[in-house]
Amino acid sequence: MSQKETTRGQRIAIDLLGKAASIDDFWQQRVIVEMNDYQFKVARVEGDFIWHSHADTDETFIVLEGELRIDFREGAMTLRAGELGIVPKGVEHKPYAKEEKDSADRTAWCRQHRRHTKRAHGAE
Amino acid sequence: MSQKETTRGQRIAIDLLGKAASIDDFWQQRVIVEMNDYQFKVARVEGDFIWHSHADTDETFIVLEGELRIDFREGAMTLRAGELGIVPKGVEHKPYAKEEKDSADRTAWCRQHRRHTKRAHGAE
Repeated sequence: MSQKETTRGQRIAIDLLGKAASIDDFWQQRVIVEMNDYQFKVARVEGDFIWHSHADTDETFIVLEGELRIDFREGAMTLRAGELGIVPKGVEHKPYAKEEKDSADRTAWCRQHRRHTKRAHGAE
Repeated sequence: MSQKETTRGQRIAIDLLGKAASIDDFWQQRVIVEMNDYQFKVARVEGDFIWHSHADTDETFIVLEGELRIDFREGAMTLRAGELGIVPKGVEHKPYAKEEKDSADRTAWCRQHRRHTKRAHGAE
């Protein structure tokens, strides 16, 4: 099996929370599998991420554990475990999660967007 | 807010299992949201679906509850709750889930693939 086939995760069951739990640092995102030209990534999150937007793609978040708030310049969207939310392309947003007080408070997500052919972040 | 914006689920938390639970019939798939030119669908499943393939797109399955087996012409992939699996484009497959004996045995999934511009199923 070539590296490309492995990366695309053909016919393999991927335990999303297990993949997230094995990450040491907050906001360190791990690409777990690709679908067409899209990537699925998992991360453990705590505190504030940076304001940014994606000029060329919508972005999907699925919360696996805990609670994720995504702030917009106007309003916010709160996602709990088992919930999915979409940030439209071009819309500035800032993910945020409360501090982990114990293991039951962890927040982990699976996010997905089109693979960037060039850096498309517009972070402040 | 236009219909198109509503369909794309902008900034709305979607309870995946709740959406699946509200479906009456097995294999009746409901489009819950779109991301770029992709659709997310949920379904409750039991027994055998048909053999088919998608000529133009990979397909992603995320199991929300229960256990889903996807048969291939050679081998199979079993996905449990919280697991994600990808069926590469062009690969024949047949989803299968055991009968629901009680509510704890339900199988529900969220699946995603590129929106078809024409019918691309190759069902037997």
